[in-house]
Formats: sequence, structure tokens, C-alpha cells
Amino acid sequence: MGESIYGLKRSHKCAELTSANIGETVTVMGWVQKQRNLGSLVFVDLRDRSGILQIVFTDKDGEMLDRAKTIRSEFVLAVVGTVSARAPEAVNRKMATGEIEIIVKELRILSSSETPPIYIEENSDVNEITRLKYRYLDLRRPDMQRNLILRHRVAKVARDYYDDNGFLEIETPILVKSTPEGARDYLVPSRVHSGKFYALPQSPQLYKQLLMVSGFDRYFQIAKCFRDEDLRADRQPEFTQIDLEMSFVNVDDVLTINEGFVKRVFKEALGVELETPFLRMPYAEAMERFGSDKPDIRFGMELVNVSELVADCGFKVFTDAVAGGGSVRAINAKGCAKFSRKEIDALVEVVKTYKAKGMAWISIDNNNEIKSSFAKFMTEEEMKALLGRVEAEAGDLICFVADKNSVVFDALGQLRLEVARKLNILNPDEFKFLWVTEFPLFEYDEEEGRYAAKHHPFTCPMDEDIEFLDTDPGKARAKAYDIVLNGVELGGGSIRIHIQELQAKMFRLLGFTEEDANTKFGFLLDAFRYGTPPHGGMAFGLDRMIMLMAKTGSIRDVIAFPKVQNASSPMDNAPDIVDEKQIQELHINIIDEI
Amino acid sequence: MGESIYGLKRSHKCAELTSANIGETVTVMGWVQKQRNLGSLVFVDLRDRSGILQIVFTDKDGEMLDRAKTIRSEFVLAVVGTVSARAPEAVNRKMATGEIEIIVKELRILSSSETPPIYIEENSDVNEITRLKYRYLDLRRPDMQRNLILRHRVAKVARDYYDDNGFLEIETPILVKSTPEGARDYLVPSRVHSGKFYALPQSPQLYKQLLMVSGFDRYFQIAKCFRDEDLRADRQPEFTQIDLEMSFVNVDDVLTINEGFVKRVFKEALGVELETPFLRMPYAEAMERFGSDKPDIRFGMELVNVSELVADCGFKVFTDAVAGGGSVRAINAKGCAKFSRKEIDALVEVVKTYKAKGMAWISIDNNNEIKSSFAKFMTEEEMKALLGRVEAEAGDLICFVADKNSVVFDALGQLRLEVARKLNILNPDEFKFLWVTEFPLFEYDEEEGRYAAKHHPFTCPMDEDIEFLDTDPGKARAKAYDIVLNGVELGGGSIRIHIQELQAKMFRLLGFTEEDANTKFGFLLDAFRYGTPPHGGMAFGLDRMIMLMAKTGSIRDVIAFPKVQNASSPMDNAPDIVDEKQIQELHINIIDEI
Repeated sequence: MGESIYGLKRSHKCAELTSANIGETVTVMGWVQKQRNLGSLVFVDLRDRSGILQIVFTDKDGEMLDRAKTIRSEFVLAVVGTVSARAPEAVNRKMATGEIEIIVKELRILSSSETPPIYIEENSDVNEITRLKYRYLDLRRPDMQRNLILRHRVAKVARDYYDDNGFLEIETPILVKSTPEGARDYLVPSRVHSGKFYALPQSPQLYKQLLMVSGFDRYFQIAKCFRDEDLRADRQPEFTQIDLEMSFVNVDDVLTINEGFVKRVFKEALGVELETPFLRMPYAEAMERFGSDKPDIRFGMELVNVSELVADCGFKVFTDAVAGGGSVRAINAKGCAKFSRKEIDALVEVVKTYKAKGMAWISIDNNNEIKSSFAKFMTEEEMKALLGRVEAEAGDLICFVADKNSVVFDALGQLRLEVARKLNILNPDEFKFLWVTEFPLFEYDEEEGRYAAKHHPFTCPMDEDIEFLDTDPGKARAKAYDIVLNGVELGGGSIRIHIQELQAKMFRLLGFTEEDANTKFGFLLDAFRYGTPPHGGMAFGLDRMIMLMAKTGSIRDVIAFPKVQNASSPMDNAPDIVDEKQIQELHINIIDEI
Repeated sequence: MGESIYGLKRSHKCAELTSANIGETVTVMGWVQKQRNLGSLVFVDLRDRSGILQIVFTDKDGEMLDRAKTIRSEFVLAVVGTVSARAPEAVNRKMATGEIEIIVKELRILSSSETPPIYIEENSDVNEITRLKYRYLDLRRPDMQRNLILRHRVAKVARDYYDDNGFLEIETPILVKSTPEGARDYLVPSRVHSGKFYALPQSPQLYKQLLMVSGFDRYFQIAKCFRDEDLRADRQPEFTQIDLEMSFVNVDDVLTINEGFVKRVFKEALGVELETPFLRMPYAEAMERFGSDKPDIRFGMELVNVSELVADCGFKVFTDAVAGGGSVRAINAKGCAKFSRKEIDALVEVVKTYKAKGMAWISIDNNNEIKSSFAKFMTEEEMKALLGRVEAEAGDLICFVADKNSVVFDALGQLRLEVARKLNILNPDEFKFLWVTEFPLFEYDEEEGRYAAKHHPFTCPMDEDIEFLDTDPGKARAKAYDIVLNGVELGGGSIRIHIQELQAKMFRLLGFTEEDANTKFGFLLDAFRYGTPPHGGMAFGLDRMIMLMAKTGSIRDVIAFPKVQNASSPMDNAPDIVDEKQIQELHINIIDEI
């Protein structure tokens, strides 16, 4: 059994001690990082959240020295001792506490430990399932401790900032009504109401809009959200949003407040100074220049539209694309003329992944010799015009995709990123923020043959585009915006519709019957009958934000107890079978699968 | 349709304006509290979160005056106007903005409103179901706004305080494993794992202990918790805890940190200065003196044990109780001799509610005349001794209960509160905090014929009582504590067992088989094998804390969107039926009830 700490009180955390404390009697407690037994001396590196401290057992107290020799890694100790200077040759400049050590006067072994199944050290390369099964040990590793400390700090700064700016944190319910739009809801069977279910919220969207109807003016919440979807690498069944809403605002008000938050959190949590205002770019421009609605603007290599130059050339792939209403566009991969045939083939595979039929290219070697996949179809003048348009120089590789616009944007946008990765020009220490604005209000759902909301059905069209709702809905732009960091969407939002009639029209355009809309959103539509302020807001994906700030590749590294790909938890085995009685009380049966 | 705010920017909230702003052109936005049409003038009281401001439309602009005449209560307006001094006779000293008014230059009606189904005013007496159905309107009322603003402030101060004291806020999962101890779990059927379920957590207990095993040292979270129980007036299916855990601490450390929080939150959120340290009282003393483990110590009227005085008296009710191992105890209801027979009968009903067979009493009127329900069984000397022991004076009513101790404590403890309410001596502005400590480790479950954990199975026995585990478990006291405010339990916690063997012994005493314990808590027991620090913590019931601070009688008044007694939400109708397809995907059937 372990000893009690009765009568002891920790005086310092391990790494709080410095040479300024020499001569003091201190009490420290922590885990054994390692123990070295030199016979007449035993050294122990003692670890707590603050760091590591060396403690020394001498042969002055033989009984204690004997006990110290039984100490193993991950034992938990309390020691009382005197802070002493290390001998000059023993000073360790790499440790914060490297100038001192504790000469122990009293030892208590609070808890012993078996040999842990994973090493408690930085950047363990143990496989992730083992790490997650023993998450309580994995979380002892310094990088995981740093990640969760960073997460705490970011959440704290968010609360400070929004509070300073007049936002109220208001808790919205977790047991809500199922309104299946977009993703699949998690359901909770009701025991009291047989055959009925609660849903876990995909976001507090409806509630935050109701809070604006209630006159709370500025709402904020760090909110748990839930989606029962098959998981991709950066998704979790439950995830966390910094969620907010403001009344009486335009797009610009929302953007200004929130980039103020980002600036403050990068400063206070990372010590990084960001320039504001962030660049703002309409969706159409982002697509045109970067082929993406979340462009990484740490580098150029922008898309160039060469359609008019090739509209009448001899290359059928190009002319067909233009004639069919599509386009031909290029990126200039500077300095990539040296790519091998195999490397170029790999680039072709990239564009094919994104549904392009192929990639045409021109390379100019350092002797200005030109190779091309399609030169034979072109006149010399046409080639020259093309190279001029893309500002080609010796050493460059020009890549073309010809197709309908959506495919061209997607394929070249991705190709641009792939080339940047190959060239290793993406600086992980550079944080380039961007607002993408004026998103399309709708996207056409080809499968369903109808318009779907690009953001969500409550998004307000731009004032100047309201007329398109009756004439050409696909042309209408929305008061919607995303915040993008280094090519990753960190969050987004919109100004909402605050007028009942306009909301009703939106639902009609989205193919809802009046009954549908009433069943699903009736209480919001009802609320709009009693005086609704213009309002808008956004949400940041907190998990993803921390992941980028911590520069880790997995969202699971910034969540204390995450789920794996199949939505289970290797540590506690959730989900699991439950007692038959629990199920019966819910008025449900399990269907045995054959 | 409503007008847009395009081109307008709010310059002030309504109640931010004072006579210091006279002459300025301002833009304000808000709801119409009321409109008065005087023909050539229209007055509107405009309301936002900050308060109310008077705006005036004059006949200088006839078109605008006509539009102002169409304005009704709860319309949403944006107005641009000039801040002007009111005429001296129009000054309203009761309003923060009562010296000024806005002479309107531009009016936009952002949203109209039907006549709202409830009045938007302080202390509405509309029935609660209507309030909850139209919660978005109910939340416009100033008292509800104040409650949620207070709630925000309390949560913010909690985060500031625990952050200042080295606690990390770490999110624990909402989709967890079902470990049915105590209350009933809400279950979430898994779509991916047929026949398996997640549970919603009743508290983050296991996770916060694991975080201590992980070395996070101090954890904190404002956490949503869930219990599928039939609701009492002050319970909700989902509720919120301020939840925390600390490593390397004794009881005293936990109490000191947390009363520091209470002191700070009362100061910053209510402006109330509390004295610390709070009174600390062992459970046994609280029962002996107040008949309650959550005594209201705003007043005395303590219990007096008169068993030895009556052990041999002629009143069989008294002697039987003492002989049977029980006791006879009394409270002195000062000044209650004037109670009518009917009032005394009502007191008898109170003790009967709490399982006492009856109440004996003595009253001494102002002429020192003694009446008693049992005088005939007593000698004069015995009566005198009794009156002496309870320090009876002219005007007092002495109430006795004789039974086994648990019944005596419960009945007299409740009677004491009832008398205090009748005497109206409970000052709602007085906040008397108390720590109750040294709770029993177990309580004997008569139905099941075994010991049950009084707090929970992870609670550590007091060092000096560990020996009782083997000899007389009922005698063992725990390192457990509750914080009590004015007779209400605000929170509680304990030092946890950190030694695997002691935890295993606890499970055995609680009647768990080893398999049971492993199935339910195996991952925690596993974790304890790898070095566990002594640790302990507590949780505050946030909803109840706000309710007491806001001096409202219902927990639903401090929750934005609460559920009613049958766990449903009148506003959005949750829980509700869902699509058949959603149910099928979860591999379950609804059982039709006959």
C-alpha cells in the first residue's frame, strides 16, 4: 500500500525551484522520471506538471537509502529536503532546475507503479491505439501536457476576450429536438415519453438565434456539438465550437470583432503577433486566383485563366472545354522544370483525383528549351502568348487543366498545394489568415435536382442580390464568411435572415413544404413574429484551431479523451452493451443483425 | 418586410446615453417597450439589454411621424437622432436615462411584431408553461435577463479564479460508457456498433480522477451532467457543475481553495463580502446540534438531547425510545407559546411527515403558566429539569421528539426550519456558509441488506478510521465534505482513494464482485497500477448556486432553455418522434406499448 501525505504540505512544484532557493527546506511531490542507483547515492528525477527536479538520497540515512533503491519509474513520491547547489561539473544547462538538487531528509512512497506499457517521454512513437487505451499514461507525456495546457489557455483567452466585448456566455441545451439537416443526429430515447427521442445538437444555431430574439445582444459559448457521421481523420463524434452571435450588426462588425479575438489569442497563447485587419477576399476571387474557397496564401502560384488565348487553338481538349462553357487555366510551378517524368506523372494523378481528365504542361529548362505535352497542336505564336500570360521563365513548369470551371478550380487548387508541399515552401511558423466572403447562397444539388443552402437555411442573401431569389437563385451571394488559416477553414458564419417572409421564401426555394419547415423550425419561425433584430454570428472549430496552433497533425492530440475512427474509445470501451433492464425502460428493442 | 440596417452602425446602447451626450447625433437600436401617440408627437420607450431610452418623433417630418404612429410594442427599430435634455417637468428620476430623450431624424422599422402572448415586464405572473413555450419572449423580461447575466458573471469569475490558482479547464467526453451507479443513465444507441450504447455522463468523476493520474495536478471544468430521473422541483435532466480535482492535497487544501472561490464570486458577482474561513463542522456535530447534514445556521434553535433526563420518567414514549437505543430531543421555539392549538397541530404534522410518531410539547405563557401534552406523566422535578436543560423562559414552546436517532434528527431538523419560517426569521440577504465534514463512509442500505457508499465508492476513509473497515464499517468516517449555504447543499466532494488495494477492499465492502468492479471501473483500477497521486476534489451545483444568488425560487429561472417536470421542452417539443429511417440506422425498434 502507498503511504499517506498526512501532515505534509507541498511547498513548491518541481520546476519552481531555482538557485534562489538554495538552503531552503522544501516539500515536493511527483512522479519518478528515472532512478539511478550508484550504491552510496541514489539519484531520482522527479516530475510534475511544471517539469523535472533532481533529488538525491545519500548514505547518511541507510534505511531511507535502501527504500530509495526500491524506487522505479512512475512511482509517486513526496520528499522533504534541502535545496543544494549541484557540483559545477554536475550542472545541467538544459534543465530549468539544472543548477540545483534536493538532498532528501524524508521520503514517502505515495504510490508504486508497474512498468508502464508506453514510455513517458516527448514524441513517443507507440502506436495510437495503445496510446489511447492507456490514455492516462499517454497524457503524462510532455507534448500532450503542452497541448492541453494550450487548449486551456485558448479557451480562457476566448472567454476573456468575448466577455470584455460584451458577450454573455449562455448555456444552450444538450438534449434537444431532432432537426435532421445536413449531418446525422445522435438520438437519445426518452424513458418518460415512449417512442420519442431527444437529439444531441449539431450546433446551438437555433438557440443562439432565439437568444438574439430575446434581446441578449451578444451571445457566446464554448459549445459541445455532435454529429453521427463516419469519421475522417480530423473529425470526432463530439467536437467543440467557439460559438457566437451578435445583434444589430453587418458583416464587417462580425469580422472585426472576431479577428480581434484571433489576434489576442495568438498573442496571449502563442506569443505570435498578427497583423489585423486580415485580408478579405470574395469567394469568386478566391476561386479565380487560388481555385479554392480556403486558399493557403502563404505562397503565390496563382491560377491564370488562359481560355481566351486557346479558344481557337488546335488542341481540342482546350477548345472543347472553352466551347462547353468551361475554361482552361494554368499555374506556373516556378523552378519545377527539373521535375522528372515520374514526378510530372504524379502531378497528373493529383488532378485526376479531383476529377480532371488530365493535365497539360510546358516546361522550360535552364537553356530555355521548351518541352510540352501539347506543343504539336499549337502555333509558335500561341505558345509564346501562353508563356507570356503565365510569366514563364527558364526553369518553370506550367501546368494546365481544361474542363468545366468547378473541376478546373478544384484540380488546380489542389495541384498548387501539392507543388508547394513538394517544393517545401510552406512555413509552419507563418500564420496567414484570410476572410473569404460573399459565398454563394445556394449550391445546386445535382442528385436531388434542387438548390441546397451552401451555409444553412437561415443565411441572409446580400441586399443587392435579393432580386435573384426570384430570377436566378444560383447567382445570389450570401452574407456568409469563412475564416481561413494556411489553407484550413477555421470557422465561418453569416448574417441571418431576420424577416419572417424572407425566411419563408428561403424555405420554399430549398424545397421545404410549409409543413416541413414548421415541424422542423416552427418555434424559430414563431419567434420571428414578435420582433426580431438583424443578427449574425459565426463559430470557430476549437479542436482544429488548437491543432494548428500546437502544430500537431491529429485532432486527437488536442482532445483529452478522443474517440477513434469507428467512434469508440479504446480506454473505457464505449460504446458498450448495457443491462437489459436499462434498454427496456426506454421502450426499445435491439434488432439482432443476421 | 422589415428594413435593413445597411449603412447604419449602432453608436450606443440605449442606457449608455446620459446628459453628457446632449447635442450628439447617435444611432440606437432596440425593441419598443411602449408607444404613446399624442397626435403631433409620438413617444417611444426603446429597450435593449442595457435598459430603456425615450425617443421622440415630432411633426417636423410628417411622413416619419405617420410611420411612428404605426409602431406597436415589441417592434424592432433603428433610429438616428439628437440627444436632447427633457423639459424639467418631464425628467424621470427613476430611469437611468430619465434626463434625456432622442429627437429622431431617421427611423427604420427593422421588424414588426404581433401582440406578444406574455407581457415583457418584471415579475410577470403568466403561468410557467406559457412562459416556457414562448421562452424567447420570457427571456426578454428584465428579471430573466438579470438572472442569465448573473449566471454568465458567476461562470466567468469561476474560470478566472481557478485559472489564477493553477487549474486547467479540460473537457471530458459527453459520449461515455454506461456505469450505472446511483442514478439512471441517459443512453445513446450506437449506429456503428450494433446493440451497443453510449451513456451521457452523470458527472466527470472517473475522467477527472484519470486526469490526476495523468499528472495534470489541478483540473477544473464547468461541466454538463445528465441524470434520467423523475424530476423534483429543483432538478433538471441536464444540469451544470463547477467540477474540480486536485493532486497532493488534504481535505483542508480543498476547502481553503474553494471557499476562496465562493468569497470571490460573491464579491465580484453580487458585491457581497463574505468572511472566510467558513465555519467547519463534522457531520456528527451537525446532526447533534441541527438534526441535519445541511443545517441553516442563520439562526439557533439547536437540538437538545434530554434522553438522560427522561430515561426513567413516567412517560412511556420517552422511556421506550431511550431504552431502544434511540433518544429524546427537543428544540426551544422561543416566543411560540402563543401558537394556537391548530398551529401546534400543524407542527405535529411536520414531524409525522418525517416519520416521527408524534411530537410532545410544553408551553410557558407570559404568566409562567405551563401547559404540556405529557405533564401528567412527569414529576414536577422532572419537568423543571427538562425546562432547565432547554433554557425555557416565559413565552417559549418546547417541542420533543422521541424515536430512533435518525428519525429524531430528521423530524426535529425539519421542525426547526418550519418554526423559523413561521417566525419569519430567515433573512434572504444573509449568506451563511458552512462546511460539513467527516461524513460517514457508508450508509447501511436496509433494503439491500448491505453497505452503500454515502458519497461514492472512490471516497477515502479517514486515516484514523481505516481499521474500522475490517471491524465495523458503519463507524468509519470519510474524507468527505459538503458546502452548505443557508440550509441548502451547494456542493460536495472528497479525498479519493489513491491506493489500488484499498479501492479493491472498498468495492468488496460495497458488495461488488471483482468482475463487476472490473466491468464498470476497470480502466480506473488499471490506471491506479501506474503511480497515482493522492487526490481529491469537489463539485458545485451551478444551477442551484445561481438560484440562491438570484434569490429566485425555481431553478428554471436561471437556465435559458430548461425542461419541465416530465423532462420535455414546451418550446421545441423535445423529445419528439423522429423519422423511421433514423431509428432503423440505430439497430433498434420501438416497442409499442399496449
